Amino acid sequence: MGGGPNKETLVFIFQEDEPKQVTDRIRKDFPYIEVIYHKLGKPQQGKLMGGIPYAFDQIPDSLWQKATILVTLGSLPSDPKLAPNLKLIHLLSAGVDHFLKHPIFTDTDIPVTTSSGIHGPAISEWVLMTTLNLAKNYNIMHDNQKQHKWDSKSTGLMNRSDWLGKTVGVCGYGSIGRQVARVFSAMGSNVHAYTSSPRDTPASRRDTGYVIPNTGDPEGAIPNAWYSGSDKTGLHTFLASGLDMLLVSVPLTDSTRGLFGQEEMDVLYRASMEKAKARSAVVDEDNDEPRLPDSQGCILLNIARGAIVQTDALISALKAGKLQGAALDVTDPEPLPEDSELWDLPNAIITPHASGLFKEYIERGFDILAENLRRREKGERLVNEINRKKGYRSASS
Amino acid sequence: MGGGPNKETLVFIFQEDEPKQVTDRIRKDFPYIEVIYHKLGKPQQGKLMGGIPYAFDQIPDSLWQKATILVTLGSLPSDPKLAPNLKLIHLLSAGVDHFLKHPIFTDTDIPVTTSSGIHGPAISEWVLMTTLNLAKNYNIMHDNQKQHKWDSKSTGLMNRSDWLGKTVGVCGYGSIGRQVARVFSAMGSNVHAYTSSPRDTPASRRDTGYVIPNTGDPEGAIPNAWYSGSDKTGLHTFLASGLDMLLVSVPLTDSTRGLFGQEEMDVLYRASMEKAKARSAVVDEDNDEPRLPDSQGCILLNIARGAIVQTDALISALKAGKLQGAALDVTDPEPLPEDSELWDLPNAIITPHASGLFKEYIERGFDILAENLRRREKGERLVNEINRKKGYRSASS
Repeated sequence: MGGGPNKETLVFIFQEDEPKQVTDRIRKDFPYIEVIYHKLGKPQQGKLMGGIPYAFDQIPDSLWQKATILVTLGSLPSDPKLAPNLKLIHLLSAGVDHFLKHPIFTDTDIPVTTSSGIHGPAISEWVLMTTLNLAKNYNIMHDNQKQHKWDSKSTGLMNRSDWLGKTVGVCGYGSIGRQVARVFSAMGSNVHAYTSSPRDTPASRRDTGYVIPNTGDPEGAIPNAWYSGSDKTGLHTFLASGLDMLLVSVPLTDSTRGLFGQEEMDVLYRASMEKAKARSAVVDEDNDEPRLPDSQGCILLNIARGAIVQTDALISALKAGKLQGAALDVTDPEPLPEDSELWDLPNAIITPHASGLFKEYIERGFDILAENLRRREKGERLVNEINRKKGYRSASS
Repeated sequence: MGGGPNKETLVFIFQEDEPKQVTDRIRKDFPYIEVIYHKLGKPQQGKLMGGIPYAFDQIPDSLWQKATILVTLGSLPSDPKLAPNLKLIHLLSAGVDHFLKHPIFTDTDIPVTTSSGIHGPAISEWVLMTTLNLAKNYNIMHDNQKQHKWDSKSTGLMNRSDWLGKTVGVCGYGSIGRQVARVFSAMGSNVHAYTSSPRDTPASRRDTGYVIPNTGDPEGAIPNAWYSGSDKTGLHTFLASGLDMLLVSVPLTDSTRGLFGQEEMDVLYRASMEKAKARSAVVDEDNDEPRLPDSQGCILLNIARGAIVQTDALISALKAGKLQGAALDVTDPEPLPEDSELWDLPNAIITPHASGLFKEYIERGFDILAENLRRREKGERLVNEINRKKGYRSASS
């Protein structure tokens, strides 16, 4: 890997004005690094990632020539030969699926690190907000407010549970899932974690990616139960474990595409029925397909990628009351078409792939770079380096 | 106090059908207690507490005569002589201000215990929900959804902070404030606690009331800073400490009535300005009264009693942008009049004294009774016993 405190040139390419608070901290903490800021012009039509443009006009060859470290949301030299001195690329994005066929990945072994791990706080807050809005009928309270109506009965809160002793399922125990687990655990909920490969040992439960200090679950100590399996059996055992909320936070891969279909909704529904019966909630057993009592079903949240959940199956489950509700920050397709039924379902919350947007984004992305610069100085292994074979860092799975 | 496993008669008066899950647990765990359930008739007009009726038709004298333990939301014998065998009263409410002049309080020393301590989970969830809805512009996302509009830019989330490293102020560190502290701490926020009397020693920081296992902050270990003082100076030092959220969770007493007026809003505003400057957020200093940049002000929440906050001062501060927003579950007066300006302020959330309503209420209230029955058997001090001199239990202050 080389490196260490030799003279370095860090090229930082971004579309806003230079965030001086951030770049000056690098200049101060790493005096051997010259920081060159390049502000991009207009984004290319249609190149958006979570609403953020990532592809822009041409970068001057002279800049690529100088760069030993590149920090970018997605601007890469079209030909690796243009940047012969490049020793480290730090991406300000978390996902890399759209870069994996770029020659920088296929034809070089320049270390590429991601900003995975910085989204936990913002996205877990979106998870909390939407879960609670669904569970506590916030939209009804909001409508009452608009009508200047003071009416506690219509909120239905006397028949709504708090989250003490409830169970949240985290499907994909990466940095986001871990922060969600941390907060719900503080709220008194139990946490069930699901991962594709088993996590039977303390070492396998650790978060191997970048962890913001005092967030997440670095040791994997929070879950009350772990489930795993790359086939339906493992997944269904997890889904049958009595979940009051289910967070989908796995990456989109060939094996997670369409993972949640009608069968999975039915497993969740049956488990909710069992739980309602155990709580002596009244269930109309005479009906062929008895409905769950109000607010007894599972709330499904997707913050990963829309295509992991089958939209039609989700809509049917929501309409049939098999789920209590759903909150989707990602949809399939995206943007969600104007005529999708999802928009109008009273128990669905739709937000426009915005849960991971937050003000401190660039600052936190640079925290990871700074950590890696310190590790390079000491000759240590980089954090968040992309495993070119796997396509995403393993702790996210 | 006497008691112990002699034969006892517990009279439980309530307005719904007998919650058998709850009463049968008492019968099973305390076989020496006969449980008599009395279902109330229609509530008397206008006797509401947080939307729940608490005064009802006459209770038969024979029932008062038998009772050695009384469990009730608010039904008491009009004359203590009617209930000569009463040795313990457990109230299913948390507050007692409306009972303090009742002869049971003034003319007897029958121990009275409250259900204070069971609201933490539900109310802290309301606090989370409304704080996040304000901080993340949920209402805008909701309006977009109703219009089938997929638009991440209009959410403003790129300029909105997450709660990592932010500071929440808890004014009144009782069971609710402690659970709020627990959850925000898990979200990575700092906690500043304010109490009227100083908490300089570990013993003074403890929660002396009933604590639901695995909730709250029993030892008072969470706050990063403690503030105190029964005069304005102490309060203002706390309010000047850079709060991004302020929770009002003190009981209503002569000294907290009107506690938050224009002066207090201005202290919060000036502290937010200082904080924005330190963060290098652009501030227009030329203006006489420079406005805070978007989303840089404090969010004020009131879950205690409406009269603690001066409504006019709050409205002015919200309109002037001195506060980022406010969420009120209690107002002054209550219900909030239909023509109040508060209803229509875009940065205000109004809910109808409903934050403390939740499905498991009676079950959790009986958890405290069960704890006290066990304590009586062992001759230990009761938890949540009302101090007749003070009017509320000290841990709530």
